[in-house]
Amino acid sequence: MTGVSRRRLFGLAGAGVAVAGAGAGAGYLATASGDESETVPFHGPHQAGIVTPAQDRMHFVAFDVTTTDRAELVALLRDWTRAAERMTAGQEAVADGAVGGHAEEPPGDTGEALGLPASALTLTIGFGPSLFDGRFGLADRRPPALVDLPHFPADALDPARSGGDLCVQACANDPQVAVHAVRNLARIGFGKVAVRWSQLGFGRTATTSRNQSTPRNLFGFKDGTNNLKAEDTAELDRHVWAQPGDGPQWMTGGSYLVARRIRMHVETWDRTSLGEQETIVGRTKGSGAPHGAADEFDQVDLQARGPDGELRIAEDSHIRLAAPATHGGARMLRRGYNFTDGSDGLGRLDAGLFFVCFNRDPRTQFIPVQRLLSKKDLMMEYLQHNGSAIFACPPGTRPGGHWGESLFA
Amino acid sequence: MTGVSRRRLFGLAGAGVAVAGAGAGAGYLATASGDESETVPFHGPHQAGIVTPAQDRMHFVAFDVTTTDRAELVALLRDWTRAAERMTAGQEAVADGAVGGHAEEPPGDTGEALGLPASALTLTIGFGPSLFDGRFGLADRRPPALVDLPHFPADALDPARSGGDLCVQACANDPQVAVHAVRNLARIGFGKVAVRWSQLGFGRTATTSRNQSTPRNLFGFKDGTNNLKAEDTAELDRHVWAQPGDGPQWMTGGSYLVARRIRMHVETWDRTSLGEQETIVGRTKGSGAPHGAADEFDQVDLQARGPDGELRIAEDSHIRLAAPATHGGARMLRRGYNFTDGSDGLGRLDAGLFFVCFNRDPRTQFIPVQRLLSKKDLMMEYLQHNGSAIFACPPGTRPGGHWGESLFA
Repeated sequence: MTGVSRRRLFGLAGAGVAVAGAGAGAGYLATASGDESETVPFHGPHQAGIVTPAQDRMHFVAFDVTTTDRAELVALLRDWTRAAERMTAGQEAVADGAVGGHAEEPPGDTGEALGLPASALTLTIGFGPSLFDGRFGLADRRPPALVDLPHFPADALDPARSGGDLCVQACANDPQVAVHAVRNLARIGFGKVAVRWSQLGFGRTATTSRNQSTPRNLFGFKDGTNNLKAEDTAELDRHVWAQPGDGPQWMTGGSYLVARRIRMHVETWDRTSLGEQETIVGRTKGSGAPHGAADEFDQVDLQARGPDGELRIAEDSHIRLAAPATHGGARMLRRGYNFTDGSDGLGRLDAGLFFVCFNRDPRTQFIPVQRLLSKKDLMMEYLQHNGSAIFACPPGTRPGGHWGESLFA
Repeated sequence: MTGVSRRRLFGLAGAGVAVAGAGAGAGYLATASGDESETVPFHGPHQAGIVTPAQDRMHFVAFDVTTTDRAELVALLRDWTRAAERMTAGQEAVADGAVGGHAEEPPGDTGEALGLPASALTLTIGFGPSLFDGRFGLADRRPPALVDLPHFPADALDPARSGGDLCVQACANDPQVAVHAVRNLARIGFGKVAVRWSQLGFGRTATTSRNQSTPRNLFGFKDGTNNLKAEDTAELDRHVWAQPGDGPQWMTGGSYLVARRIRMHVETWDRTSLGEQETIVGRTKGSGAPHGAADEFDQVDLQARGPDGELRIAEDSHIRLAAPATHGGARMLRRGYNFTDGSDGLGRLDAGLFFVCFNRDPRTQFIPVQRLLSKKDLMMEYLQHNGSAIFACPPGTRPGGHWGESLFA
């Protein structure tokens, strides 16, 4: 059944379903929602899921590699790539997947995405610092930019939510599609990798395209207004994509992903006055406009003072401390998601931001920005970073190529 | 700003947005997705969120009541009702909510749903057995049907995921809208209630209307084919809604909700053969047809035997043991959701089914069915029930009325 979409296998049910002839060669049938029918090409010079317009939902997973056999790891990366190609096209993880195989054998696909379209699924792989510890002969291939993140003031990191040899970021407009993808990769990796931690995110908190409106984080503020956008290709080369000469050749065209699980003490925040919240953020809550301006996308003027002579954007406000101007022009591509993971046993929701950013070099981007924020940002009083990880996401693949090809070459 | 939708407050951004004049008096503006623009009426003879066509996402929360003052509890239920009326109409929790109040005061709404439409939000309240323990003068008002659930074989219940004095089931087509609603109710209840546990669900696992196609659970099977449907009003009176004379008058028109957090050992399941999986379930994985039949909705024939003389639907298969015919015609309205809550520290996903069902009387519906399933169901090998709760969901409200009015009258 190679080349046949999951949806076509079982016919269609329900209203609002129509045949869509377009689409990136996937042959899928679209629902009434344009978003869910979308497919994002898997191959390209860069991995998908970085500048791809941020999808609505995320399932992020970090793996420990349990095999010590380099060839077995490379074979897994090859198998994963084939499965990723298929799933991002709206197909099952393998041909004859959930129901097309022999009754006496476990199905090749877990089946919960049967009938669901591609939903703009992207799968993005990254390699953690621990992968380069010598088990796989990669000790001399570790990029200098793939540093161990320093301890930041107020970090309260849980090892069970941090680190990992490998990561896969699955983003899609349907969470069941993202969960299905991660689960099937974990299944293919059985005996070679084990899930170290995983995180679901339900609401994107930053846009990565000018065609998206800015969503709100769980503090109720628009988040990501001045994020890098897919359309700014020169800026992406400067701030996101590793360039020739930056480090090892195998990372050229790749990017460094930093993930932080940031618990937000929403109950405390919610008891703070509107004025104080806006001072902390540096923007108006309603429109998202920076203080001293009228519109969300007006330029941030860090020097502007009010009639009282005070800075309009406070000295220790979040947007001042994070501003490129404060860091010699350093910018990152943010791609985080809101999360709510039940409650904490103390009568409060366990909610916050799963922060994900992509850097050309975290040593000059994420790290100095976070160092300053963790020391001075007024918002830190309401935050707790309890998970942390860094991964080198290699460049994209060609048809026939596989994840990690440049690293293991 | 009463009567003004969240979306209208801040104008519109992005493509695909059009003015929709229809809708239940909410005056909201619709996105391109029909689902997200939908509003479900809050008031009615029954609470919404029970036979309402199952929305895509859920945030379920159980509260402990921390005040011991009956009047304060009643006042909270009144405040909650006003907020629920507003939020289900796509409005903020209170008028002049996130940004319309005084700068010196905490905002009346947390703001993360600003700009989002109603998304078919429903909020359904329930009262747990512990609410009737005497603190609030309700000891003689406890319905006999609101039993303490018995221990079932193989139960491995976590008290931190079980019980509760009150529950609110929030369902919506956008998870951010469901999360916002629960958070704002928790906020309004600060000092009077505390979150005991909460659960997000991302994929509905049962349909409650003939207009919905059957979704798949995390075992990859269609789930809920023979569920009760909103269209079967006589069956609903027989199996879902408490009738006059069933118990205390205050519950007439209400229903008893049973919630079970069912961890599914998906990794083990995924190593089981397709044939074995289909034997356990009693249905074909692809089409969902019961064994011996061709189509999903064909009648389940529990007596049919194959050419080999064996029962087509195995003796201990799930659909036989759960079938109404096995329980003297007893049926329930199921309304569960798939969940994935990260990983378990042992290399596996913490995933499963948050089972929710509505009963006219759980003593003759959920309890005997679960007793049989927990003893004999072949599927139990792959399941672990680790959360459990029961709540009495009162009848619906009239405009001006409030949650619990009939109970506290």
